[in-house]
Amino acid sequence: MVVKVLGQPSYACPRRVILALLEKEIEHEIVIVDGKVGQDKGPEYLKLQPFGLYPTIQDGDLTLFESRAIIRYYAEKYRNQGTDLLGKTLEERALIEQWVEVESQNLNPPLMQLVIQILVYPAFGRASDPKVIEESEEKVAKVLDIYEEKLSKTKYLAGDSFTLADLTHLPLTYYLLEPLKKPYLVRDRKHVSAWWDDITSRPSWKKSVELYPFPF
Amino acid sequence: MVVKVLGQPSYACPRRVILALLEKEIEHEIVIVDGKVGQDKGPEYLKLQPFGLYPTIQDGDLTLFESRAIIRYYAEKYRNQGTDLLGKTLEERALIEQWVEVESQNLNPPLMQLVIQILVYPAFGRASDPKVIEESEEKVAKVLDIYEEKLSKTKYLAGDSFTLADLTHLPLTYYLLEPLKKPYLVRDRKHVSAWWDDITSRPSWKKSVELYPFPF
Repeated sequence: MVVKVLGQPSYACPRRVILALLEKEIEHEIVIVDGKVGQDKGPEYLKLQPFGLYPTIQDGDLTLFESRAIIRYYAEKYRNQGTDLLGKTLEERALIEQWVEVESQNLNPPLMQLVIQILVYPAFGRASDPKVIEESEEKVAKVLDIYEEKLSKTKYLAGDSFTLADLTHLPLTYYLLEPLKKPYLVRDRKHVSAWWDDITSRPSWKKSVELYPFPF
Repeated sequence: MVVKVLGQPSYACPRRVILALLEKEIEHEIVIVDGKVGQDKGPEYLKLQPFGLYPTIQDGDLTLFESRAIIRYYAEKYRNQGTDLLGKTLEERALIEQWVEVESQNLNPPLMQLVIQILVYPAFGRASDPKVIEESEEKVAKVLDIYEEKLSKTKYLAGDSFTLADLTHLPLTYYLLEPLKKPYLVRDRKHVSAWWDDITSRPSWKKSVELYPFPF
């Protein structure tokens, strides 16, 4: 059964799912749902994803949305295929989940604000708010200071191997370096910088960027 | 080994963890970390939780933070003790995780804005922003419209039994009814209202409210 990934594969949340499918060597196909012509808020897509957000997967009888729920499902279902993304013990998994949540709760909100204010608003002719940009950058910097300390002790966020904790960071953190032109947030932190080089050297990342170039 | 829950138990995220421990019948004790006297940003607590946020648990050698990571860990570790919160199959768990993420990504951000603007800012003498309040309430209402539709089909968010998907909603949704004085957001939606009455009739909820009254 080929997994269908519905959405816009160049966007951050669908990319999170695609990266997990690539790491787990799971056959999948992309079904474009084009927000530019309103398909994301159309009746057909809303039946699957009532919030009209990307991505949704269809896998046999299972319809599932929310990127972090999807990556957990496939990491567990194909435990012994491809890269182990969940650790060996319940305690290892707990620490992986901890860092997945740190990304979701602490890093993602201010980082998404930067994307919205610097890239999305201007693209739609709306003015951005310099104060929000300044505050968001400060918040991102504080989170990355904590990552720097953690990554001085372990090679990856949740220990010595690449897991969901690292994978979940890839799609949005990328924006800091290229589209947002704030590479110093990563590069001025020695261990964060080395971690970033390591996780973006993975074939899954390279393939996703090649297949689905970033929209900005 | 008694699980130590560090933080302020009357706050939403520690309460999420306490509810899970009560549902799973896990012995635990509260260790107050008092933000009012700066303990949350003190060196001792920051060693355990570098962001200075509540809660953190200590369980033997394991130190873990992020409430949603903690509740997943205990729901899985004590699978056969207390209430089953994760479903019977990987697919059931995936749908539970989906709704845990919906709370985290779609409901929590605007609901937290309402708490901050209406309760926290005035308590610290800071003016709230009526436009942010209005927009946040609209966002909460839209999410609850989708819940209304879902709960017209299944008794609980992820199916026919109470799971982590429902539990994770308890601590913050409560604010709508009492402290924020917006009960109509719940009560004007028949199925959301019945769901709310059902999940707040659980002994775990009653005990948590009795032991740790709300700060507002």
